[in-house]
Order: sequence, then C-alpha cells, then structure tokens
Amino acid sequence: MAGTTDQEAFRTQLIDTGVLLDTGVRGVFGQGAALLEIAAAVDALVTRKAADERALRVSFPPVMPRRVLEDNGYLGSCPQLAATVFSFEGDEDAATDQAAVAAGHGDWSGHQRATDVVMVPAACHPVYPAVAALGPVPDGGQTVDAGAAWVFRREPSNDPARMQAFHQREVVRIGTPDDVAAWRDGWRDRAAGMLAGLGLDTAVDEANDPFFGRAGRLLARSQRAQKLKFEITVPIASPEPTAVASFNAHGDHFATAFGLKHADGTVAHTACLGFGLERISLALLRAHGFDREAWPEPVRADLWP
Amino acid sequence: MAGTTDQEAFRTQLIDTGVLLDTGVRGVFGQGAALLEIAAAVDALVTRKAADERALRVSFPPVMPRRVLEDNGYLGSCPQLAATVFSFEGDEDAATDQAAVAAGHGDWSGHQRATDVVMVPAACHPVYPAVAALGPVPDGGQTVDAGAAWVFRREPSNDPARMQAFHQREVVRIGTPDDVAAWRDGWRDRAAGMLAGLGLDTAVDEANDPFFGRAGRLLARSQRAQKLKFEITVPIASPEPTAVASFNAHGDHFATAFGLKHADGTVAHTACLGFGLERISLALLRAHGFDREAWPEPVRADLWP
Repeated sequence: MAGTTDQEAFRTQLIDTGVLLDTGVRGVFGQGAALLEIAAAVDALVTRKAADERALRVSFPPVMPRRVLEDNGYLGSCPQLAATVFSFEGDEDAATDQAAVAAGHGDWSGHQRATDVVMVPAACHPVYPAVAALGPVPDGGQTVDAGAAWVFRREPSNDPARMQAFHQREVVRIGTPDDVAAWRDGWRDRAAGMLAGLGLDTAVDEANDPFFGRAGRLLARSQRAQKLKFEITVPIASPEPTAVASFNAHGDHFATAFGLKHADGTVAHTACLGFGLERISLALLRAHGFDREAWPEPVRADLWP
Repeated sequence: MAGTTDQEAFRTQLIDTGVLLDTGVRGVFGQGAALLEIAAAVDALVTRKAADERALRVSFPPVMPRRVLEDNGYLGSCPQLAATVFSFEGDEDAATDQAAVAAGHGDWSGHQRATDVVMVPAACHPVYPAVAALGPVPDGGQTVDAGAAWVFRREPSNDPARMQAFHQREVVRIGTPDDVAAWRDGWRDRAAGMLAGLGLDTAVDEANDPFFGRAGRLLARSQRAQKLKFEITVPIASPEPTAVASFNAHGDHFATAFGLKHADGTVAHTACLGFGLERISLALLRAHGFDREAWPEPVRADLWP
C-alpha cells in the first residue's frame, strides 16, 4: 500500500529522529529509545487500569501452533494477513545450494518447507487453547492479561502507523454472554476516556475486520450489524484517523473451537480488547511533538506518575 | 530431539505449576507470571550492569529482512536453525481452497509464498545493518543495547530449556579490534560473576555454534581454535549443563557484510553478548525452588533490589 505524502513525511521524520530505524522492508522497523519508553508507559497505564480485575497474567511468543490458525477460522476471514513459518529440512548438498542462491539474492524458497508453527496475527489467538487446557472457566468468569505481545500481519505499507510487526496490548475476558458483553462495553468506554485523557483526538466507531474478498463484504456487514467490533480511532500519520484500540465480542466462536466451558459444561463466551502500542505512541508524538519534556503536564502525569 | 527423563519431569513440573503453558508444539510455550517476573528481573539486572556504557538503546521485531539473512552468512553455517516467513498471495478461489484444506488439517503449504522477511535467529542480526545506516562508528566505539528480543531457532526439543522461541538479552559492541576484544572478555568475566552471585553453578567454556554438516565440523574447530565464542553454562533440566549466556567475537565479519566503518573509512570489528532469559529463569527455579519467597536473600536482593 502506497503511503500518502503526509504519511511519508511523518515516516521520514520518525527515522531522522531515531524514533524508528529503517530496515528496508516496509512496515518492519527497529525502535529507538523514545518509542520504547512511550510504549512502555502506555503499557503500564493499561496495566494500572486493569489492576482491579486480578487477571491471569500470561505471555506468548510471536509464533503459535499452525493448528490454532487452522481451528480458529482466520484463514477463512483474513487469509491475506496470515503468515506461516517455513524451515530447511534438506541435506548438505541442498544446504550448499540454498546458501549459494541466497548469497546471490536469488529465489531459495524451494528449499523451505512448512513447519508446525505460524505467526501470531492477533495476541488473543494463542490464549484460548492454552486457557482451555487449564480446565473449566472459574465461577464468575476469568480475565486473561496477555500483556504486550508481538503480532504479525502481512500488510506492507508506507504508512508508519501500519506496521507488519507490532505490539498488541491484549486482554481477554471469558464468561457468560452478559458478563463478556458488559466487560467489552465497559472497557471500550474506559479506554476512550483514557486515550482522550492523553490529549488524543479520539472517536469510537463500530468497525469490521479487514475480511478478504467478496464473501468478506458479507462478513463485514454482519459484524457491523451485530456490533461485534468497536474501534477507537485517532489521526496519526495523516488527517484520516487510524484505529489504535479495538474491543471485540466473539460470541462462542473461540470457545467452541477450543473447548472453553463453564464447570456445568456449557460453552463460554469470549471478548477481547487490544491496544496498538506503537500506534498510540506515534499518535502521542504527532499530537504533542517530539520533545517529551514539553508535553502537557496532565499527559505526562498519566504516563509517568 | 527427545528429552531425557530428567528433562521431561522438569517440563511437566513447569507446566503443572503454571510457569509454562503447553501449546502442543515442542519448544513453543506460553509463559506464566512467575517466569515473566523472574525474566524481567534478570533483564533489569543486566541493564544495571550495562548502565555505565551509555549504550544506544534499540529494539527489533521477531522478523527481519530476508536480505539480512542472505548477507550475513547464517544460511551457510546454521541452515537447519533458520526459518522464513511465507504468506498467501492468491485469489478468492485459492483462499477458499486453502481454508478448506486447513480446516481438515491437510497440507495447505502450497498456497503460501516466500515473503521478504525471515525469523530473527539471533538478536544481534538486525542491529548491524540498522546501525550501519546511521553513519560512521563514533570515535571511541559504540555499544548497542538490543534489549530482550524474541528469537526463533528451528530446534524442536522436549528439553524445556531448549525452546524454539525465546528471549535473548543482547548487547553489541562496535569498535577497534582491541576495543571489542577487551569488551567481550570483560563482559564474559562480569557475567560469570553476576550469574554465580545468583547462586547458579556456572562454568565458563570455549564453545562453538551448532554449525551444520561436515563442513560445520571444520567451522566449529576453527571457531574454538580462535577462541571466538565463550559460553557460560549451568545445569537446568538435567545434570549436564546448558549454555545460558554467550560472548562472541566476530572479527570484521558483520562489519564487512553491512558496511560498519570508522570515520576514517576502516572497517570496524564487532562483538556481542547474549543472555538467554528463559534459560536463566528456569535455572534459578531449578536451583532455588518454586517458592521465590524462600530463595536465598542475596539472590533476591540482586534480582529485586
């Protein structure tokens, strides 16, 4: 996806100031100290907001079992964003050929074979099967804090706010339909206040996932009609706003796929929220400037209490 | 790689106590609060030890440009550990077929094509080209702190201390040959003291990378003869020790590959160190038990000052 002039100018500014380090691949950046410090502060702010939920704290790697992707329906809805991990299984002659072709920047992909792991496209995906394996959902429901996790979406873009690899600060709720609905809506409203309090020009919108193809248009309409997804949007690299957080109701989709049940055997419902840590950090730099000492005092107090 | 009885018993204990969450794929685990808290404390201890170096602080995603892997020689030395990222580029019919085959757990890898990114196999790999792009090496050399980064090595094992996805706490030094040699040796000795101070049964050994095949045996001998690699080893899941940290001299290998030069145009030398955060954390649990309150007071004071 080509970036607009605004986006490319902001990208250049971010690289020139060391906030991002260019790798030569669109949407794959190193991160400098300023971005790391702002993102850590936003992460910690979310942790403070979530403290009263006494969540189960977990963290997952950037890869997950291929089987999870096969079972959770993502390849049906967003195959264009999914990515898989391949590796080499050949002998010494094959290794020699692979290395020689690679050194000449030719196509050595024929030496690579699919493994049993894939990239994590959403930080909640590995949570459901892992928590299901722990046993029935506790009475009163369960909050699972998946922390700040690396996710990968195959979406090369010149917009610095649309990275292929980025951190989602993710929290999952598992419980009855009423419980997870109230949790999702409560967090949506609390998060909107939290982000507005950081001086960001927020809007809360019904939204849909970027479903693939013609069938995807039907899925998107259905998701909006059922109000399954809300996003908080903020202008970042250009005037049109970008989603920086999402609040999602899944019904019993993930619970059925992975066997998340209450003690009485009924299938649970799930919801999740995700904050895009890099997007929020870049939005703060865009809104308040690159000199953090000069940010409004209430914003600094929220981030660095 | 099959695990020994010791290793499988420790793995079971780690899962039963919630330190690790099983995903069903060997060497790919979720991490519970205990592991996250211990690893964060080890990470912070390294940060305190490195504070006087005023390092350039950077962080890279778990993926890096394929070109970096093609240029750095890793496919010649350790092709069995490298992993690449593939994605879908097809149309709606192909997507429908891919999703259907995947839902039945068949082989849908034929729908996946190589992308321009690969998994990061060592946390220092993305550092060299990114720092080279910033300009000449500063007078007096430069330390780059790459933080705690996810790396991936295709090495499925039942030994819980040998994960496919894990955190390397990595620091890189760039400078003259004498500078980087002194830095590498100084950190090796300081780290050995640091880990012994945590009550771990450490040994410092000359080592070699797990080079592939017959040619790899020559590379390994040469690496040992030149004392390019030292490891600190500790018993973790079984009595035979496992490397928990490594200290590596690269000569001008990476600097030549990526154009790291001094202001006068001469090619720099590089060295790096890496701490395996999960391995050190598991070694601490093995050495001192699962009740952190009962760990020796000096160890607790080092980790949680």
